[in-house]
Amino acid sequence: MFDAIEKLKEYIGYQSVSADSAYKEGMGQTRDFVAKMLGDLGLSVEIVNTPKHPIVMARRTGDPSWPHVVIYGHYDVQPVDPIELWETKPFEATIKGDRIYGRGAADNKGPQMAHIAAVAELLEECPDLPLRITFLIEGEEEVGSPSLLPLLEERKEELSEADFVLLSDTLSPSEDQIAVTVGLRGIVDMEVELVGPKSDLHSGLHGGAVYNPLQAMAEICASLHTPDNRVNVPGFYDDVTEVEEWERDELKELGADMDAYAASVGVDALHPIAGYTPFEAIRYMPTLEFNGLWGGYTGEGSKTIVPAKASVKITCRLVGNMKPDVVGKQVADAILSRVPKGLKAKVKMGHKGVPYLVVPPDRPNTPAGQSEVLANAYRATEAAVTDVFGKKPLFLREGGSIPIIADVKRVTGLDSVMIGLFLPEDNLHAPNESMSLEVLKKGIQVSKRILKSVAGV
Amino acid sequence: MFDAIEKLKEYIGYQSVSADSAYKEGMGQTRDFVAKMLGDLGLSVEIVNTPKHPIVMARRTGDPSWPHVVIYGHYDVQPVDPIELWETKPFEATIKGDRIYGRGAADNKGPQMAHIAAVAELLEECPDLPLRITFLIEGEEEVGSPSLLPLLEERKEELSEADFVLLSDTLSPSEDQIAVTVGLRGIVDMEVELVGPKSDLHSGLHGGAVYNPLQAMAEICASLHTPDNRVNVPGFYDDVTEVEEWERDELKELGADMDAYAASVGVDALHPIAGYTPFEAIRYMPTLEFNGLWGGYTGEGSKTIVPAKASVKITCRLVGNMKPDVVGKQVADAILSRVPKGLKAKVKMGHKGVPYLVVPPDRPNTPAGQSEVLANAYRATEAAVTDVFGKKPLFLREGGSIPIIADVKRVTGLDSVMIGLFLPEDNLHAPNESMSLEVLKKGIQVSKRILKSVAGV
Repeated sequence: MFDAIEKLKEYIGYQSVSADSAYKEGMGQTRDFVAKMLGDLGLSVEIVNTPKHPIVMARRTGDPSWPHVVIYGHYDVQPVDPIELWETKPFEATIKGDRIYGRGAADNKGPQMAHIAAVAELLEECPDLPLRITFLIEGEEEVGSPSLLPLLEERKEELSEADFVLLSDTLSPSEDQIAVTVGLRGIVDMEVELVGPKSDLHSGLHGGAVYNPLQAMAEICASLHTPDNRVNVPGFYDDVTEVEEWERDELKELGADMDAYAASVGVDALHPIAGYTPFEAIRYMPTLEFNGLWGGYTGEGSKTIVPAKASVKITCRLVGNMKPDVVGKQVADAILSRVPKGLKAKVKMGHKGVPYLVVPPDRPNTPAGQSEVLANAYRATEAAVTDVFGKKPLFLREGGSIPIIADVKRVTGLDSVMIGLFLPEDNLHAPNESMSLEVLKKGIQVSKRILKSVAGV
Repeated sequence: MFDAIEKLKEYIGYQSVSADSAYKEGMGQTRDFVAKMLGDLGLSVEIVNTPKHPIVMARRTGDPSWPHVVIYGHYDVQPVDPIELWETKPFEATIKGDRIYGRGAADNKGPQMAHIAAVAELLEECPDLPLRITFLIEGEEEVGSPSLLPLLEERKEELSEADFVLLSDTLSPSEDQIAVTVGLRGIVDMEVELVGPKSDLHSGLHGGAVYNPLQAMAEICASLHTPDNRVNVPGFYDDVTEVEEWERDELKELGADMDAYAASVGVDALHPIAGYTPFEAIRYMPTLEFNGLWGGYTGEGSKTIVPAKASVKITCRLVGNMKPDVVGKQVADAILSRVPKGLKAKVKMGHKGVPYLVVPPDRPNTPAGQSEVLANAYRATEAAVTDVFGKKPLFLREGGSIPIIADVKRVTGLDSVMIGLFLPEDNLHAPNESMSLEVLKKGIQVSKRILKSVAGV
């Protein structure tokens, strides 16, 4: 009998910080643990080497007529800093009340365990289950999944032949309101350096004669939004697509207590693009955000300089048919065209990811050729969540970006069923990360029901 | 016989970094050296205690009818970082060709030595010189002279009774063109912190709903200048005063090869306030400069956040009758009034200094009651520089700020004769600081001629 909570406790105990090379040994131990756990279920395990942290693939093969589900997860976790804010040991799972605490509890070891336990229980109950399963558990998600796209391309033939991807690495608003994520924003990021004088200048001896790079940077950055908070870059909105009525209806069901939302992030007013509510803006509209800005003297006291340069980090979130390369160039061109005389600018492009959108079955805009297995998975998800959690799930876009989901779609043609099993109170990427054991148990039931339904048993 | 170069070598050898408490012993040794050097000239030395680094005062008293000159200098120096860029040891004076290298060579040990050596030679040649002299050599100039104003106030009676202050702590354009500084800009600095959400937010999950503090900061900073580079703060220019024709004529004589100036600071275009040349803008007009700007993630790679806050350091340079308190409030009020909803701002005021302007004798706007001793000192300065350096000095305002000069004027009523004895190539506040020995020797001659003329011998 597979004990999901015991397995999760053990899983959390392995120290798998992918960003920090000091955890190389822990990464290996974690990988071995995952491989053994999946092997013990009777799956064939393959460790796929990558430049950093190998990917664990585990397959239940079978008759080619059987449906084939790919279950995605990641065994790596975020760093634990600031360690002094943890109330329990981050790599020693601790159960307090109905919650399990530890780094990775919610991202992604716990939610991932729901699907592993579901498969374990199903195969025990029904050894002949007519379902092919491929687990794909990577170890580089927290460092941007650099090895996943190469793997997708290398295993394109095998993976394309599957029916859909099942994963839980997204957020639900609460235990009472599970969300199935049907859309993710794309992303393109860049860093801009603006260079003025050849070195910091004395602001007394030169101030008033030379264009201050911080002033120019502020002017350029300020020019990138209009007062109604639209992005002021030619062509930026060209490939934004219309949002269907059913999507707006789902979002309305989510409710929108904007005062509570503003309070939760600690501001006394919100600032969405004109014509959209804040929740619509996050999900339906692209953004241009400044993630970091710096230049000149930033220490204590004062230093009377005209600084030599200024830098800004910018991330654009993309929706609809917006393409990272196109938008990146639009923004870079806009910035470069606004650099005043006396300064030079360099733009360095960073990560890129296209937006993702899947339309569940039975909607006005469901694609005509949507696969029956995928449609079935979605219908089963809705029914299972409704029964197990007591309320119909909402099919919502999310403002975040998981570029691999769009990559999977682009390379293999597979859509993803993303069931949110972590909650706002789970402290992802923060001290005292935890997961509700009740959500874990319900997640196992939901996953089992989906897999059984897909298998047709 | 006083050997100025030997004394300067020894002076540079004493490690007097006032900003760094690790140099406490070096500061004491330097002070002892200065005290002994001045005592050896027959002056009465007083060490005035201050909270940080005591001030050396040394007096040659005499008949109250004798003119009385205060000679100002500072024995402290800038830190030596980055030490790896020094080609000689910063605290071991090294003579290469016609230059003496070492920290403080130009700022201020060398130029100050010109006046000390002049007094030494004069007293040797003319032991009965009818001149009262007060050296005032402080040890906190590089940390903002916090003890000088209290000293001025404490010794107001004694100092007010002097005729003028003589010092060399300003720049000349070249050895061939000595400048006498007749005006300094005032200063007021402040730091503004803009706070948005209570912590950094995930730019996917929240981007588009919350006002990004970096965006708001850029918009506020961008609003502080108009496209013609005027400061866009109500009332900012109210107390700027007219510049006299003779001043413009002097500046014209300086010449204005703007291409050469732009090249020297490493830009391909300059950006003065509309209606002024860059050199006029630096000297005659106030500025609002951003000295430092920061917020969000500034490390390697990307971090997809809406940052919680943003900060900027601002310095305003003031001219004419502009008052630091008034201008500081104008700027702070303008900034606070431009903070959008959803953010809060805090403004912290820093250093303050009023502008300074002295009009030499024989100008259309020379004050009617200007003292004959000061007028004589100015005339002697012009004649001596013309003879010794081979060209008439220019009487110019400078864009920098030496708040103590204005404080001296305000508290004691004394004007200052500021003869520029360091040059652009001297690397002040930078590695490989040096001073031309030729300028030092000529400086001694000029100082002697001024002092003799003031003494009437």
